[in-house]
Amino acid sequence: MTSAYDDNNIFAKILRGEIPSHRIYEDQYTVAFMDVMPQAPGHVLVVPKAPSRNILDADPTTLTQAITVVQKVANAVKDVFDADGVFIAQFNEPAAGQTVFHLHFHVIPRHEGTALRPHSGKMEDGAVLAAHAEKLRAALA
Amino acid sequence: MTSAYDDNNIFAKILRGEIPSHRIYEDQYTVAFMDVMPQAPGHVLVVPKAPSRNILDADPTTLTQAITVVQKVANAVKDVFDADGVFIAQFNEPAAGQTVFHLHFHVIPRHEGTALRPHSGKMEDGAVLAAHAEKLRAALA
Repeated sequence: MTSAYDDNNIFAKILRGEIPSHRIYEDQYTVAFMDVMPQAPGHVLVVPKAPSRNILDADPTTLTQAITVVQKVANAVKDVFDADGVFIAQFNEPAAGQTVFHLHFHVIPRHEGTALRPHSGKMEDGAVLAAHAEKLRAALA
Repeated sequence: MTSAYDDNNIFAKILRGEIPSHRIYEDQYTVAFMDVMPQAPGHVLVVPKAPSRNILDADPTTLTQAITVVQKVANAVKDVFDADGVFIAQFNEPAAGQTVFHLHFHVIPRHEGTALRPHSGKMEDGAVLAAHAEKLRAALA
């Protein structure tokens, strides 16, 4: 069984402004901000404002709004980080790697010959994230 | 630079019916079929009919049509394979793991304590894929 949505998750707190984030994009439906434990420089999370636990229980409209932002962000991270490719990942339930229970898409720039770092709990320096966010905001503006 | 779309890719041939596939879903815009080298039993590919190389060059409408099918398939594979979670992956360009250059989403059931198999070139038995496809078609009907 899938559990219900719990609005004390960290992304809900970020959406409410109770926890800071390095935002790069926001529209009526969707926010994008830097992952604080990036698997590669430029790792961004695309997060719908509407509450859902993951893709399994999301309103289809929430998904269609989010995927268009995923595309914008994918092109932006590829350009800004001069990436060779972009990996999109979306995890549903702990068995699939989900650790925050508010629907989100990972957008991760990839470079030939560079492995992804594990999503291991090492926080990136805030100044680095701020600098990356500034470049991405400019690319998306 | 991203290369142009080449309609000799294997998914284009599947869409044209030149190569067989174990289809589980089809609508006006999107097809879903079994991955022949599944990383877990029930590994499905969701493939838009419209040609695009990947998410970077796709028409946004193609993405919104596809993601609603991804959601349907995610719920179906979770139910049919009694999965604990579902992993959605979408690879853009070889550096990100893309090997077929027609936009597609991987939908992969996950079970606690079971690692994904590598996407290694080992073809699954056709009868196994046919049986999985039949169950998924029933779930999606």
